[in-house]
Amino acid sequence: MKSLLIICDGMGDRLIEGKTPLEVADKPNMDIIAREGINGIMDTVRAGIRPGSDTAHLSLFGYDPFKVYTGRGPFEAYGAGLNLEKGDIAIRCNFATLKDGKIIDRRAGRDELGLEKLTNELDGIEIDNVRIIFRRCKGHRAVLIFKGEDLSSMISDTDPEELNVPPNKSTPLDGNTDSKRTAEILNKFTMMSQKILSDHEVNKERIKQGKLPANVVLARGAGIKPELTSFENKYGIKGACISATSLIIGVCRASGMDIIEVEGATGHVDSDIIKKAEATINALKHYDFVFLHIKGTDEASHDGNFDLKKKMIERIDKEVIGPILDKVDLEDTTIVLTADHSTPVGIRQHSADPVPIAILGDVRTDSVKKFSERDCSKGGLNRICGRYLMDTILDLSDKARLFGA
Amino acid sequence: MKSLLIICDGMGDRLIEGKTPLEVADKPNMDIIAREGINGIMDTVRAGIRPGSDTAHLSLFGYDPFKVYTGRGPFEAYGAGLNLEKGDIAIRCNFATLKDGKIIDRRAGRDELGLEKLTNELDGIEIDNVRIIFRRCKGHRAVLIFKGEDLSSMISDTDPEELNVPPNKSTPLDGNTDSKRTAEILNKFTMMSQKILSDHEVNKERIKQGKLPANVVLARGAGIKPELTSFENKYGIKGACISATSLIIGVCRASGMDIIEVEGATGHVDSDIIKKAEATINALKHYDFVFLHIKGTDEASHDGNFDLKKKMIERIDKEVIGPILDKVDLEDTTIVLTADHSTPVGIRQHSADPVPIAILGDVRTDSVKKFSERDCSKGGLNRICGRYLMDTILDLSDKARLFGA
Repeated sequence: MKSLLIICDGMGDRLIEGKTPLEVADKPNMDIIAREGINGIMDTVRAGIRPGSDTAHLSLFGYDPFKVYTGRGPFEAYGAGLNLEKGDIAIRCNFATLKDGKIIDRRAGRDELGLEKLTNELDGIEIDNVRIIFRRCKGHRAVLIFKGEDLSSMISDTDPEELNVPPNKSTPLDGNTDSKRTAEILNKFTMMSQKILSDHEVNKERIKQGKLPANVVLARGAGIKPELTSFENKYGIKGACISATSLIIGVCRASGMDIIEVEGATGHVDSDIIKKAEATINALKHYDFVFLHIKGTDEASHDGNFDLKKKMIERIDKEVIGPILDKVDLEDTTIVLTADHSTPVGIRQHSADPVPIAILGDVRTDSVKKFSERDCSKGGLNRICGRYLMDTILDLSDKARLFGA
Repeated sequence: MKSLLIICDGMGDRLIEGKTPLEVADKPNMDIIAREGINGIMDTVRAGIRPGSDTAHLSLFGYDPFKVYTGRGPFEAYGAGLNLEKGDIAIRCNFATLKDGKIIDRRAGRDELGLEKLTNELDGIEIDNVRIIFRRCKGHRAVLIFKGEDLSSMISDTDPEELNVPPNKSTPLDGNTDSKRTAEILNKFTMMSQKILSDHEVNKERIKQGKLPANVVLARGAGIKPELTSFENKYGIKGACISATSLIIGVCRASGMDIIEVEGATGHVDSDIIKKAEATINALKHYDFVFLHIKGTDEASHDGNFDLKKKMIERIDKEVIGPILDKVDLEDTTIVLTADHSTPVGIRQHSADPVPIAILGDVRTDSVKKFSERDCSKGGLNRICGRYLMDTILDLSDKARLFGA
């Protein structure tokens, strides 16, 4: 049997006027999965822990985020198509705008003019015997990689995440000398980025055109290359990922899954999720395990937009779940519908509230009729931990190994 | 948002004539919390583990009792207002009465006459380079602290907890030489206590007055100073404790909470819990987290008195929960009602039966209408672990940190 894991990012919620978005949305196809499947609620990382999307997905793929996660940087690097070597430190960066030593725009006006050229100026330099890899990602974003000896990810960000202040000095977060050294290298890099970029012809041209100069690089989320047993070695099957979010693609690449790109998939509420559903149905012909990730639900939640979240759920139901139920061989496929975390629209940020989960396949169908946080909490799975979801999926798909005799 | 954790000690129970005390008690205010909140059952330490009040509270505050708990002694020491240093061994003691080498009263007739003077005789002595701190607690109780090198808490009690036998010799509980040495020091201390106390003028006076002499010190529950990350460092908020039970106060002091004393609070069924409720409502004005502990339910359970337990629950409902629901700003406060463990009146001791829990606040209200063990087991929290309760409370109160990105 094959398995399909569908994650609607941040879909879980709390009550607004007594109801969650899932409770008011019209989503007949999700309800079919709930009605004909087994349901429950799930702590993706652990009860009470507010997961990021990265730590949540690591946990859902069976990795212990408390052990393997040191920061967002490495997953952004993988998401940008870079490869890391043991000991590499990766840090997420923004091109930003400084004026009189203070940050006036953290994204350099979101204008991409000449950023490729500026990137090349910083890529390949060396500081204190550490080789610097600097690569552009989408928009104003970039990834910084330190390659060398005696490095540590225990350093603070230079991005203060606020305006009208200078960039922060990076400081060591523990007493280790490697951390002190790495923070110093990052500070030197930040100084060099200002020096090299400030007088660069690209920025002269940007200013001439009335655009903000990209005259500093701000860094945050340093992490060391995670040592993950590959998904294939861990579970004995090949997995494929369909997502338009670089952080999630990064988690999947770090675990060795194949990445299937879909034209028109944006990772936003406007994403062409019909195409993603088609790609999913097709991927199931070639892979034992397919992971489909849809981000729009989380985006609507961070905007505090209940109605948009409800509509996104309805669109997923119609454009993704409907076609999948129609076209996937349900006799031969375990389908899991869930979320990576709750993002209540009322608080506009991730929360630790458990997410609803429904599993369709060779399961003990329960009495739940609707797919929602509160309906699923009465289901046959009770309350489960995300860390063990993959094992459960593979068990139901008859791909699990016996432990013992 | 602020948080209030209300623990009714030992409130969980099993069935007597088909009902638990919570099921027969008239407690409209607790039922409001259940009806308007989210409910569940909770293993405070772990399924199947019969927790003490100390280990249960450690776990409820997020500490792993299997790692940090070595014995009751240190928490009694903290509860008595003493401070411990790294490596100190603390042991709980009773003044008792020996006759012809056998214990005839484990509490020296519960008579306090001259105990202060006797305490001073033993305080400050030195045995094998170990400095002895000996301090009186309430009634016939005391705390013994060993300060020195090469000490261990892995030693057996000298208090046999029965009558008409001599005090036990303390023996090492593992093969460590430190344990052997510490047991020997305790045995020497016990011998000295007999020698110093037997002929003391205080005991001559006690005998003259027809009282039992306090002529030996019995020790139990040796523990090493626990290394706890302070509550404030752990959660980023300041907590306050309202309790009249020295062991619980000790756990809270060990974790760095402020202790709020309440006149008339006794830790027994006769406690002035109206005053405790007032202190709680007031403390919520100054603290982000307030912990209210009420002991009477446990006392009635240990006495095997179903009716007294039911009445204590009704009194808590009327005198504590009612005023709190009236006077606390419910929009701005997460309220948690639960117990530290079950103490079934039928067995008169702690049990591992999970406790009911109800949380009022920004929660997914469920269909539970009554606060009881069996009603709550059908609630939206399902079955949770006490270790992660604080994380859940802080998540609901929007004081949780994001793990990941």
